[in-house]
Amino acid sequence: MLRRVEILDSTLRDGAQGEGISFSVEDKLAVTRLLDNLGVPYVEAGNPGSNPKDLEFFRRAAGLELKNTRLVAFGSTRRKGISVEEDLNVQALLTAGTDTVALFGKCWDLHVRDILRTSEQENFNMIADTVAFFKSKSKRVIFDAEHFFDGYKANTVFAMTALEAAANAGADVLTLCDTNGGTFPREIYDITGEVCRRFDVAVGIHVHNDGGMAVANSIMAVEAGASHVQGTYLGFGERSGNANLSTIIPNLQLKLGCSCIPNGNLALLTSTARSMAEIANVRLGRGEPYVGSSAFAHKAGMHADGVLKNSSTFEHISPKTVGNERRFLMSEISGRTAVLEKIKLYCPNITKTSPELSDIIEQLKQMELEGYQYEGADASFELLVRKKLGQIKPFFELGYYRITGEKPYAPHHSAVATLKVHVGDKAQTAAGEGNGPVNALDTALRSALCGFYPSLSDFHLVDYKVRVMDSKQATAARVRVLITSTDGVSEWTTVGVSSDVIEASWLALSESMEYKLVRENTTPQL
Amino acid sequence: MLRRVEILDSTLRDGAQGEGISFSVEDKLAVTRLLDNLGVPYVEAGNPGSNPKDLEFFRRAAGLELKNTRLVAFGSTRRKGISVEEDLNVQALLTAGTDTVALFGKCWDLHVRDILRTSEQENFNMIADTVAFFKSKSKRVIFDAEHFFDGYKANTVFAMTALEAAANAGADVLTLCDTNGGTFPREIYDITGEVCRRFDVAVGIHVHNDGGMAVANSIMAVEAGASHVQGTYLGFGERSGNANLSTIIPNLQLKLGCSCIPNGNLALLTSTARSMAEIANVRLGRGEPYVGSSAFAHKAGMHADGVLKNSSTFEHISPKTVGNERRFLMSEISGRTAVLEKIKLYCPNITKTSPELSDIIEQLKQMELEGYQYEGADASFELLVRKKLGQIKPFFELGYYRITGEKPYAPHHSAVATLKVHVGDKAQTAAGEGNGPVNALDTALRSALCGFYPSLSDFHLVDYKVRVMDSKQATAARVRVLITSTDGVSEWTTVGVSSDVIEASWLALSESMEYKLVRENTTPQL
Repeated sequence: MLRRVEILDSTLRDGAQGEGISFSVEDKLAVTRLLDNLGVPYVEAGNPGSNPKDLEFFRRAAGLELKNTRLVAFGSTRRKGISVEEDLNVQALLTAGTDTVALFGKCWDLHVRDILRTSEQENFNMIADTVAFFKSKSKRVIFDAEHFFDGYKANTVFAMTALEAAANAGADVLTLCDTNGGTFPREIYDITGEVCRRFDVAVGIHVHNDGGMAVANSIMAVEAGASHVQGTYLGFGERSGNANLSTIIPNLQLKLGCSCIPNGNLALLTSTARSMAEIANVRLGRGEPYVGSSAFAHKAGMHADGVLKNSSTFEHISPKTVGNERRFLMSEISGRTAVLEKIKLYCPNITKTSPELSDIIEQLKQMELEGYQYEGADASFELLVRKKLGQIKPFFELGYYRITGEKPYAPHHSAVATLKVHVGDKAQTAAGEGNGPVNALDTALRSALCGFYPSLSDFHLVDYKVRVMDSKQATAARVRVLITSTDGVSEWTTVGVSSDVIEASWLALSESMEYKLVRENTTPQL
Repeated sequence: MLRRVEILDSTLRDGAQGEGISFSVEDKLAVTRLLDNLGVPYVEAGNPGSNPKDLEFFRRAAGLELKNTRLVAFGSTRRKGISVEEDLNVQALLTAGTDTVALFGKCWDLHVRDILRTSEQENFNMIADTVAFFKSKSKRVIFDAEHFFDGYKANTVFAMTALEAAANAGADVLTLCDTNGGTFPREIYDITGEVCRRFDVAVGIHVHNDGGMAVANSIMAVEAGASHVQGTYLGFGERSGNANLSTIIPNLQLKLGCSCIPNGNLALLTSTARSMAEIANVRLGRGEPYVGSSAFAHKAGMHADGVLKNSSTFEHISPKTVGNERRFLMSEISGRTAVLEKIKLYCPNITKTSPELSDIIEQLKQMELEGYQYEGADASFELLVRKKLGQIKPFFELGYYRITGEKPYAPHHSAVATLKVHVGDKAQTAAGEGNGPVNALDTALRSALCGFYPSLSDFHLVDYKVRVMDSKQATAARVRVLITSTDGVSEWTTVGVSSDVIEASWLALSESMEYKLVRENTTPQL
């Protein structure tokens, strides 16, 4: 029988402590949907007491229809010397309206002495009162035993008494935290085992990566009896980050026979990682175990040969299991089947031997060399395929554009775009002002096209992302622009690449309009 | 008494199998000097049999005067069915002229059957003959037992017999390899312990990171009795990489009381990592344990407060020990104390009650509301503080700039910038072309300023990042631009925010120049 291990993803809370990580409320909603889709049962989404933005998130998240995920609000035990009712942070936590809360309390006597500056007994009372308060409100309570391992090594009785205070007050999970991230795997195993034997409550693990062993430490805790694992999906977090769930989940599920997410969803691990990196605007490490683009890339000829003879000779798992793919770095064997599967969506009759397939793969390779990446830009991919298959004709063509940007700038705009488009045998010139060159271009293009295609006034852009690809070239580097648009019914993303950020934006922008027209099967009003 | 653990760095051999990693002979010499300087006793530098470039390296490396490091040449045991004398690869290995060789041989019956396609006995003979041959040439022999852990689990007798063949032929070290990188820490511990008990020869460990546990697995092997650890300095390697020595060395030396490199050299760990990344032309991960720029960076106000009260509350080791530094990230969640500590670097006399502090904090809050984020932009933060404190006067002022971007574009540029700057009571007008507006602006600004400040020609931009902040506004959204510059000695990052990507880039660009001038305490040549 499968052993159930409960996963709590804290990308939105502890992950947001990572340097360079900053989520808008929209980003947080997108991350929540992503993790729900993957099947992660708990998502710790913020600390309403320390951050008003988080409170707004919880308000808006109430409208999400989540299939698998329950949201968790995170906060501290009450402050010393006041009641839970008087503690505004505790009350803020309640207003998040989640059915589960995570409460952190001190388990290292050093912290009680040097940071809290209160008595040991008051610390235990703070834990017990706060846990009891949330239990009285019928919440599920996860107690995060901050610095548990350092605390246990310094003063075992103190650390265990803190856990006892939480357990006796009704905590549903006791999560042992290696907050400073320096504990070794065997210590984690021994101490977690000790706690599991002592308490009749579910035990959790939450570790940081300062010793580079957060994944292994989480695994060791599960082997010692823990049944709840906290981490962040890509290991984001303060200093060297938190335990990386995109590695832990497949380790547990494929190697230890645990059940963490629905089995069929393991194949979403890689695409989830890529989307997560996209939302956080960080580059996913090539070598990330399981989900990185190099995770199954073979360079040594001998390894490549071996894998072709028998894949288990040089691969610990089959890449498909986690939605990734095998790549041979010096050869051209990759991806044909994956591309075929995707193309079938628009052209059901295509087969592995169709000449069009080779054509499309050739063009994809060319585009990838130029820096295109279609992972996050399905609309551009569809346009590329359909053009190649002769299914669509161009809706408009650019004559020229010209952008002027100035500083000091005019009262309400800093850029002006003029452009000319051709539709059939007609032409239209238009101009637009904007808070920057891309905004001006957007305005001008809509103005030029709306006489031909009135429906273009019904959609708008919801996201605009810029990624610099080859940063060694600095301001002359190539940039990839992703634009997401919506007409209120659906959302689509297009991509453009150029060394000029304006040209890259133009490419993504014009495809976003083209895609809208393709979907509607529009003809121009000439 | 300190327990000695021998380190073998394979950045130049196994590390070079990583995607995107490619070393010239010059690079290899530079890496060798770097590791020698750090005090790494063994550097595995190549496979003369498979790569003629490696043979040239060994020829030239003979001229290096190494203080601490011995070079190791790597190769296979002889091929099936021929003698060691007939095997050209074995002979090539000899010509490398190192006093130590590493030989890999098969320890998994699956490989002997499916890849080598020979008998078990011939496999054992191949191992024994090759080890004996190099011992007869008075070499120190490290036997790399390829796929040992998978082999042991599949057929323990076969795997142990392979080791025995090497040991009986005189191998000095038996290195147990987790070639596919999927073995778990407890298995590593148990199996390594078993081998240590069985053989009276030094045991080594060589693991890959496919399960994200290569560091922990190396540590577990040492705890089980291994006294030789192989890895690559930054974890480079095929697929998800090799065990990362820049994490393993401090873990062993600071936490387990082992001796790996001379104690005083631990403080070189961080600079060695940065130089290594530079040579390999990769960006060192911010969160790399011990050596990353974020490894001791605190963002949460509570953590920053705690570290200042007692650093062991939120730091597993003191950052100085490994040559790194503590950083307080300036953000909406960082507290007053953190800001104060940072300001003290430029203004030692400031105190918690100075009116300037409130002023600066007020301004920081204002800038953060506008979308500024200083956690990644130390140089801009320093400029802001010093301007507020009246420590610097402006080096130049913008009169105006005007950018034109066009499509279709001219043969070698898509944008032209003209601008005017004022320096003292002089003014200079200049123009620049570029592959996009920001590149053009950069060229024009340097051209305008270099007459006043010749040192501006000595630095260049190494990274340019764009982040869109409020994506709901799409192309009218605010963007944050980060620019990293270097003059070969140090690196600094500046930030600019605007709804216009060109203006945001201008702000970051002009501060990058200003910062260079502040550091040099330059006065203009008027």
